Amino acid sequence: MHDLMMRTRIAQALELPEPQKDIKISGWVRTRRDAKGFSFIELNDGSCLNNIQVIVDENTPAFSSLDKVGTGASLEVVGELVLSPGKGQRYEVKAQTLKVFGEADPETFPLQKKRHSDEFLRTIAHLRPRTNKYGAAFRVRSEAAFAVHEFFRERGYFHVHTPILTGSDCEGAGEMFRVTTLPTNEIPQNKENPFENDFFGCEANLTVSGQLEAETLAMGLGQVYTFGPTFRAENSNTHRHAAEFWMIEPEAAFATLDDMMTLGEDITRTVLDRIMTRLPNEMELFDKFVEPGLLEHLKHIVQSDFVKLPYSEAIEILSKTKAKFEYPVSYGLDLQTEHERYLTEQHFKKPVIVYDYPKQIKAFYMRLNDDQQTVAAMDLLVPRIGELIGGSQREERLDILTKRIQDLGQDPENYWWYLDLRRFGSVPHAGFGLGFERLLMLITGINNIRDVIPFPRTPNNLEF
Amino acid sequence: MHDLMMRTRIAQALELPEPQKDIKISGWVRTRRDAKGFSFIELNDGSCLNNIQVIVDENTPAFSSLDKVGTGASLEVVGELVLSPGKGQRYEVKAQTLKVFGEADPETFPLQKKRHSDEFLRTIAHLRPRTNKYGAAFRVRSEAAFAVHEFFRERGYFHVHTPILTGSDCEGAGEMFRVTTLPTNEIPQNKENPFENDFFGCEANLTVSGQLEAETLAMGLGQVYTFGPTFRAENSNTHRHAAEFWMIEPEAAFATLDDMMTLGEDITRTVLDRIMTRLPNEMELFDKFVEPGLLEHLKHIVQSDFVKLPYSEAIEILSKTKAKFEYPVSYGLDLQTEHERYLTEQHFKKPVIVYDYPKQIKAFYMRLNDDQQTVAAMDLLVPRIGELIGGSQREERLDILTKRIQDLGQDPENYWWYLDLRRFGSVPHAGFGLGFERLLMLITGINNIRDVIPFPRTPNNLEF
Repeated sequence: MHDLMMRTRIAQALELPEPQKDIKISGWVRTRRDAKGFSFIELNDGSCLNNIQVIVDENTPAFSSLDKVGTGASLEVVGELVLSPGKGQRYEVKAQTLKVFGEADPETFPLQKKRHSDEFLRTIAHLRPRTNKYGAAFRVRSEAAFAVHEFFRERGYFHVHTPILTGSDCEGAGEMFRVTTLPTNEIPQNKENPFENDFFGCEANLTVSGQLEAETLAMGLGQVYTFGPTFRAENSNTHRHAAEFWMIEPEAAFATLDDMMTLGEDITRTVLDRIMTRLPNEMELFDKFVEPGLLEHLKHIVQSDFVKLPYSEAIEILSKTKAKFEYPVSYGLDLQTEHERYLTEQHFKKPVIVYDYPKQIKAFYMRLNDDQQTVAAMDLLVPRIGELIGGSQREERLDILTKRIQDLGQDPENYWWYLDLRRFGSVPHAGFGLGFERLLMLITGINNIRDVIPFPRTPNNLEF
Repeated sequence: MHDLMMRTRIAQALELPEPQKDIKISGWVRTRRDAKGFSFIELNDGSCLNNIQVIVDENTPAFSSLDKVGTGASLEVVGELVLSPGKGQRYEVKAQTLKVFGEADPETFPLQKKRHSDEFLRTIAHLRPRTNKYGAAFRVRSEAAFAVHEFFRERGYFHVHTPILTGSDCEGAGEMFRVTTLPTNEIPQNKENPFENDFFGCEANLTVSGQLEAETLAMGLGQVYTFGPTFRAENSNTHRHAAEFWMIEPEAAFATLDDMMTLGEDITRTVLDRIMTRLPNEMELFDKFVEPGLLEHLKHIVQSDFVKLPYSEAIEILSKTKAKFEYPVSYGLDLQTEHERYLTEQHFKKPVIVYDYPKQIKAFYMRLNDDQQTVAAMDLLVPRIGELIGGSQREERLDILTKRIQDLGQDPENYWWYLDLRRFGSVPHAGFGLGFERLLMLITGINNIRDVIPFPRTPNNLEF
């Protein structure tokens, strides 16, 4: 009979309207404590942060299986769900039978009761989802992804899958991974096209952005967004960069830079708000143990009107302050993280959208403003993180876009299909890129990108 | 004033409870027809399959912009939303002003009114989202992706992102893309490790499945699923294979093969049902122009109990039939598409789940049954498509799994972290892989995988 009984997830069990005569719970042992005539097991099944307490009375059949039960062991308990007399949990389980699926030898199981460093836990990335912090981080990751999909769907945006393998290079030059089926121990003979015998017959790379392809889809479906992995072969080891990360890129026809500022502000506030509402226990953990003051800070962001500031004014503010920066501030230079953080943390104390950047420091596809010097670009900056979103209105005028490509020393012919969008029924359109891991770092307070990705990829690091 | 007015998407406009004095609609011209004193424009903005009819009276300012308006041009109309006297649409727009964003030269714009072949449209994959069929296909793709997320979330599964770049090889050997930052024109000197100077310092590949990593997450979060791109470097040109495609892989702790059969049946029925309910116009188009009888067929699937059939019985049925097959049928051989289609289309006339395959033809991680000959694997087969889902209960016993790896001639040390899941708190667990494009082919009736992916990747084909 017990084998046929459906397991109840702990998240469900704790929400049941009333106690249950019979319930089956499975999970991993977090702790076990023995008292006279009883054992108390804290069981977690990953469905939520909360454990459920299992009480094993020496007068039940369950008691005989107890010798194998230590931290990390997995088991199935059948028993009664009763109201818990203690404070904290509403329910606890009085075990009738107990089946141990797998033990965890205390001599070798790395996750003992004590707290471990993030650095150590990265070396056992296959086990860290069993800890409170990483379990919480990955549940937040899941719910945040869903909130992103909800957000766009509510606004009539269609989810599109742009290609990961690409022959085009969106941002221009360098730092891409090449994809190949050629052997390493041969030099291709055809110098004109060394990729002649490669899978695609030409050079293939991993995408750095789905934007160009998303634009083609926006010209058909009106409003679209991508949500997929993107890649950078940058040999830099910082706490904010990974070689593989997920990016969200909305693209909207009949939209301007202003529309994207509003959309960027909306998505930031909406996702933050929904995660705080839907995963209060996880957020409390982060507030308590990871980044004290986190919840107050996030609530402040949700309630703030974001500052909108032309780049020229941002430079003025940064030039006048007495704060010391490592990197120089001057019109025509890009903002560094320290500048972004000064604006959001010190000066305005809330998120700031900087817009209308000098064209020299921005990509070719950004729309030239009437001043001929700046482009309709924006970066959305948030405290602690710096740039969360980068976007622009796209250049929809064929002649200007062609000239921008030529000015870069590139052949417009390579962009034939991208230029076709400007030849046939061109429309004003705009979009942005939002780094999903940056959003998660903002939400959780976790300050290393390696700790919001289940299996992070960085230089010389491909384990698991 | 008109510039400040918000645009209304056509999907929204057609759902408005009552006519509107002022409305702004933007879109691309599908057709234009002129009559005495009037022009009629069918405008589409991608928000839905339906066009909205715009009427331009010669006595309005809008009339003067009409000379630039042809098929494919983009424009913005401000006017009145009125009840439509004709049948079909509920509303039409009486234009007051009309602004043309971009023309489309009828001499060069490839998408004229006539019907184009799928083959031709693949060569202009950047423009085909503007056609009815591909617009519909990509809206279905978006809604189906959302339905998948909903499905799992409702059942307490967490969405996890497993790595795309991987050093491990899930299914064993071959057919993977290599990822590198090494130059093509040099042969690495270190023969022990030719990847010494590569980005990761070791061989890196594109994932063929997120399963092994998903298992580690299921051991922490209980129930998870991946939904991401996967890759095969198979040099085959069929209508069912692409080098890059999206896969959905649930993985559940405390679950058996039976649970996965039920989950596979549920997700198939649920997604089909929701798409038919939510996108009736798109589905009507596919039923009418792509696969006559499609809707009836899908409704039949939604209402059917799927057949569950041991592999041995499937072989028996296939051996006894008078139907002719190209490939031989015999115990110990894998089923080919023709066999799968015979079972679902001719014999049972509904989806069939074949289970308990001989261990020789299945992967090492599948759980050995008590007969020592078969493994707890299942394939869910559907009419027209063949295999939609492949899954198994995973081998959770350390000794048996280690032996299976050794029997393949592989070193268990390479799987240290995967085996750790069996060392520490091992539990019965199971999962499956569902090819998202196969699901879309089932839903839309489109029979070439290249036509359900915005920018398909196949051998020698990396355009866009």
